[in-house]
Amino acid sequence: MIDTLCVIGVGLIGGSLARDLRRLKLCREVVGSSRSVDNLEKAITLGVIDRFDTDCAAAVSGADMVIVAVPLGAMSAVLERIAPALAEGAVVTDVGSAKQSVLDAASAALGEVPSWLVPGHPIAGGEHSGVAASVEKLFVNRRVILTPTAVTSAQASERVEAMWRAVGAEVLTMDPEHHDEVLAATSHLPHMLAYALVDVLGRMEDRVEIFRYAAGGFRDFTRIASSDPQMWHDICLANRDALGRVLERFAADLESLRAAVDRGDGPFMKDMFVRAKTLRDRYIREYQ
Amino acid sequence: MIDTLCVIGVGLIGGSLARDLRRLKLCREVVGSSRSVDNLEKAITLGVIDRFDTDCAAAVSGADMVIVAVPLGAMSAVLERIAPALAEGAVVTDVGSAKQSVLDAASAALGEVPSWLVPGHPIAGGEHSGVAASVEKLFVNRRVILTPTAVTSAQASERVEAMWRAVGAEVLTMDPEHHDEVLAATSHLPHMLAYALVDVLGRMEDRVEIFRYAAGGFRDFTRIASSDPQMWHDICLANRDALGRVLERFAADLESLRAAVDRGDGPFMKDMFVRAKTLRDRYIREYQ
Repeated sequence: MIDTLCVIGVGLIGGSLARDLRRLKLCREVVGSSRSVDNLEKAITLGVIDRFDTDCAAAVSGADMVIVAVPLGAMSAVLERIAPALAEGAVVTDVGSAKQSVLDAASAALGEVPSWLVPGHPIAGGEHSGVAASVEKLFVNRRVILTPTAVTSAQASERVEAMWRAVGAEVLTMDPEHHDEVLAATSHLPHMLAYALVDVLGRMEDRVEIFRYAAGGFRDFTRIASSDPQMWHDICLANRDALGRVLERFAADLESLRAAVDRGDGPFMKDMFVRAKTLRDRYIREYQ
Repeated sequence: MIDTLCVIGVGLIGGSLARDLRRLKLCREVVGSSRSVDNLEKAITLGVIDRFDTDCAAAVSGADMVIVAVPLGAMSAVLERIAPALAEGAVVTDVGSAKQSVLDAASAALGEVPSWLVPGHPIAGGEHSGVAASVEKLFVNRRVILTPTAVTSAQASERVEAMWRAVGAEVLTMDPEHHDEVLAATSHLPHMLAYALVDVLGRMEDRVEIFRYAAGGFRDFTRIASSDPQMWHDICLANRDALGRVLERFAADLESLRAAVDRGDGPFMKDMFVRAKTLRDRYIREYQ
């Protein structure tokens, strides 16, 4: 399926994908690249990659499939550096959580969106990062959203789709704007709420040992606040329009609830809680 | 330790406590009471209680320990009804998530806070409710906060404390106002955020199948939005002052973040995310 796979950014996502493609014997060789030699040496020790080069241009030479799994802020620089070094027919895909920004990064770096770039986003991952957090079978039954454009090579899209299917994912296609709106709501907004909640509690922490009395639900609720700050910084900047809109909607909804609490409006609260519970229970039934 | 235990409201908390006290042979008999005969019959089938009476006054007669595990909105009516029927020396404790309101309910129902009432709050539970959700060992290593007042019998407090210790809990004492402020922040606020988030997404759901693309983190983050709406309605009304204050603080924090997203202020975001991650990671290390 793949001869030489090049993974730029050997972390949770890039590392997990490499693990599966090796395990399933779907690629002959895996070349890793990242800024940290320590991380790359660890990736070799863990059996995630075969060899590495810290220069991503050198790493991609000879690869027929390239996964760019770097924070969104590094996308433009990586695309600019690897473009001239790509082998004929090589396909490049990324795993960024905001997709319009990847197309913008490609335009900025290369003057146009190249036909060999298939923007993608595996909806997987978690609060741990780095190659040490990579695992086998991370993508089984997970959704991967591809956002090809009019210029994207159909053959390139098919190869990326086949790769994700091979590791167990369900692959969907969406336009980048729709992707960014949906992810702003289902992923980026919850991360903002978790970060902001822990931050607010941290300020109360001076007076009372507030975390000491947190219940079990708190651990789950704030899990995503342990996610990589740099990655989320990049996502917020990359998807600021859609995220801004959904933050505004949420703030308006929360303000209605706050006002209801303030005036002791039980029916308002009950209605909202029933609606939310019904939806959340349905979500668990239908999609989990 | 206990001769006859009476549990009013045989749900997740009351049922789990009864299970443990029976299992550990720390009570001779468990009498249940609730409005639903179905639930009480299920509690007998599950071996949680020995017998029941739907009239809570009849149920408490002869009991030396009474657990009131009803939603906060029912507290006043239950206390009013059981007070004249209590045996000499009987101790009553509750499990409500807001404590000043329990003292207020007692004053309203009985004209004063009685010495036999030890307000308590086991920080346990989850999104499931009813006796079918009750389990053994729910309280092992969980914290139980007692908020006795100046009039509370020291002997009554000691008996309640010993009961919770016996089922594995760590028992702490706090004044009711402090309890309500801490729980508003660590428990009530997160529930509001989860409910409001699912509610906001539900409104977007018409346009896009938004829940379909929710990642794994979303399941954890919104788990508490599947909690019992009536119970949370009661908690919000019972703790509206403290909850209102913390909702206001959170809204202000979120607005700062929204404004930072809007102006693309990366350093602001990065600082907040780093602070939150540091705190949350410390919380997991120290308290979990």
